[in-house]
Amino acid sequence: MQLLRTSEPNFETQFDRIVRDRRESDVDVQRDVAAILTEVRERGDEALAEYSLRFDGHDLAAEENWRISPEACKAAYDNLEPELRDALNLAADRIRSYHENQLPEDRDYTDSIGMRLGARWLPVDAAGLYVPGGRAAYPSSLLMNAIPAKVAGVERLVVVTPTPKGQTNPLVLAAAHVARVDEIWRIGGAQAVAALAYGTDRIPRVDVVTGPGNAWVAEAKRQLYGVVGIDMVAGPSEILVIADKDNDPDWIAADLLSQAEHDPTSQSILITDDELLARQVQNSIDHALMKLTTAATAKASWDQHGLIVIVENLDQAPALADRLAAEHAELMVADPQALFDKLRHAGSVFLGKHTPEAVGDYIAGPNHVLPTGRRARFASGLSVLDFMKRTSFIDASDAALAAIGPAAVRLADAEGLPAHALSISVRLK
Amino acid sequence: MQLLRTSEPNFETQFDRIVRDRRESDVDVQRDVAAILTEVRERGDEALAEYSLRFDGHDLAAEENWRISPEACKAAYDNLEPELRDALNLAADRIRSYHENQLPEDRDYTDSIGMRLGARWLPVDAAGLYVPGGRAAYPSSLLMNAIPAKVAGVERLVVVTPTPKGQTNPLVLAAAHVARVDEIWRIGGAQAVAALAYGTDRIPRVDVVTGPGNAWVAEAKRQLYGVVGIDMVAGPSEILVIADKDNDPDWIAADLLSQAEHDPTSQSILITDDELLARQVQNSIDHALMKLTTAATAKASWDQHGLIVIVENLDQAPALADRLAAEHAELMVADPQALFDKLRHAGSVFLGKHTPEAVGDYIAGPNHVLPTGRRARFASGLSVLDFMKRTSFIDASDAALAAIGPAAVRLADAEGLPAHALSISVRLK
Repeated sequence: MQLLRTSEPNFETQFDRIVRDRRESDVDVQRDVAAILTEVRERGDEALAEYSLRFDGHDLAAEENWRISPEACKAAYDNLEPELRDALNLAADRIRSYHENQLPEDRDYTDSIGMRLGARWLPVDAAGLYVPGGRAAYPSSLLMNAIPAKVAGVERLVVVTPTPKGQTNPLVLAAAHVARVDEIWRIGGAQAVAALAYGTDRIPRVDVVTGPGNAWVAEAKRQLYGVVGIDMVAGPSEILVIADKDNDPDWIAADLLSQAEHDPTSQSILITDDELLARQVQNSIDHALMKLTTAATAKASWDQHGLIVIVENLDQAPALADRLAAEHAELMVADPQALFDKLRHAGSVFLGKHTPEAVGDYIAGPNHVLPTGRRARFASGLSVLDFMKRTSFIDASDAALAAIGPAAVRLADAEGLPAHALSISVRLK
Repeated sequence: MQLLRTSEPNFETQFDRIVRDRRESDVDVQRDVAAILTEVRERGDEALAEYSLRFDGHDLAAEENWRISPEACKAAYDNLEPELRDALNLAADRIRSYHENQLPEDRDYTDSIGMRLGARWLPVDAAGLYVPGGRAAYPSSLLMNAIPAKVAGVERLVVVTPTPKGQTNPLVLAAAHVARVDEIWRIGGAQAVAALAYGTDRIPRVDVVTGPGNAWVAEAKRQLYGVVGIDMVAGPSEILVIADKDNDPDWIAADLLSQAEHDPTSQSILITDDELLARQVQNSIDHALMKLTTAATAKASWDQHGLIVIVENLDQAPALADRLAAEHAELMVADPQALFDKLRHAGSVFLGKHTPEAVGDYIAGPNHVLPTGRRARFASGLSVLDFMKRTSFIDASDAALAAIGPAAVRLADAEGLPAHALSISVRLK
């Protein structure tokens, strides 16, 4: 953990170094991934079966090993303990309700010269969702990706997930049942993303691929961007807590650790104007780390990337926060709305002391797939818009074309595009 | 030009080949571009000056050679012939008005358990716009990229454009004046995109880069995707005309040629149920090609990629059109709205016989930067949203957290994330 004070002379240099640090692993998988994509593109299911055996120890020789059935998902759901089932349903309902509020409105109007103009939104035909196998397989993540797609109106929602040595994750299957996923294929890695993007004999291609994954999956999405639509390339995640002195240090410590326990590359940052609070939070973190089952990861993250910034005045916080453009920002101050009004860049904001970030990870409703690594400067969280596309339209009457056509002809001529000019002038005769 | 009939037995195979043909040049610039990006990242302005001299023959040794001043843009505007100036202003006003209609609404509501939820849209701080030099420097393209950024509220709008041997394009400068561009830098190629994304001593970095360019520029955007936001990677463009027999073949011919004259890789497609019309359109195209100054390009495109599909019945058109997912679709039929209702995938749709695509290129209002190469299946045209980002927010009262917190704790426990659970349970005591 690093502690900086804005009052110290080298603050700017040190803070700038942290803002620029990308914290991303430098595994160069570009060439490996390119080779896998080509194999799947050319050899389809055969390549998938070979990779599955090699990377996941899962044999796709038998037809029934390719898919997980809706019945299996239903059974996993029925077998959950009732309280967990209720929690999953409550989360799904709240996520659905929030995302229904995001549905865009079509436009259709006629302007003053009698030209009808507008835009129509439609869902994509099919979406693919990558769900990691093993430790990082989170049912909450499945809900956060699948529900916006279904709210958007996507008819065919396909999950791909590796099942190492044949093992499936009952919680994930139950979540797939709740989210009304249409197909689940037992494939993973870059090869699964390639199958979604190019299609194979068994697996028809999709239009959009979302969902988290390891470096290979992320690189496959990056390389296939344009062949399919993708959500933002995700990097290590962050939490920023801005806190005044009137706070319980244990609450802040838990919030910082909730980010740190995800991954050693996660980053937890506290900005406060209170030296005493900062010390108490550190103590509370040390104390909590003794008890957490995820302490090894959380400690690695906090030791390497944890940061406390002591400001002279909380008025300094918004400018610092905007440079960090954190994935999550908790505003634990007396007037969180006033602070929010001054903040420009953050993926999701948690206002007030009773809004821990984890409530947004699971159940509040807004999406937990958010821009990381300072990308909140220009990117937004996952939404129904990621599963839809907009078609603009123009409907010109004879009179409307006559009114503005001549100006377009002039511009086309000036650009040296005579067929453009002709296509208008031929109608003006 | 290829002529297919849905009634012929090999139609499906041939049509499928056309749908899959990506028409993209296979220039492998990946490594060259990666090297340029690294140079600019590490050596900044020094690298820019070297590349400018080498690629554009433009010397950046003198400070005044780096930028084009607002005064120079104003002068270029003042020197335009009045009719062209009026046309530029009319186009700008209409584009502005259409895009103002796209501004998204914030959400802010309190749900049944008393939890406040919402989303806030803000513009990015700075946007960069690539404007090609030489032949492909279109003032209309500058307006279509710059105006949505300004409507979104972007404070700093930066244009980069190569000025080969120092030459500037007065029409583009005039358009920059009309669109209220804030800075113009005389750099081009992958190095200009790198400068926008990473920033240099002279040029502060931007958050989003849009605009058309050659293979180097497109690859630079692709590689920098994630460091900055970008608009869709553009490929060769298309027009699809669906026409019934009651049409003037000269109108359709001009429309098909207006796409063909852009580039030899452009694609113009006619779907009709009328053999006679198809023949007349071909004749009209041959005739028009004798007069166009852009005939060489237009002929190359029409010969290599032109397509006429004769359908037995126009009811077959929507399914074929959806597979093509064309950038532009003209519906030259008696009831264009009924056909539009059956169509799912197209970048922009032009309804009726008096709406040539070129009116949308210049002056109707909707954006002419549209998804190409079948990407309308999942992508949308450029809009104000490309220059904005959304921050979701959650504001939980004590009571709201008490209502749903326990369910979140259960999910966190099930996912094996104890600090997530702790950050909620510590507040529920």
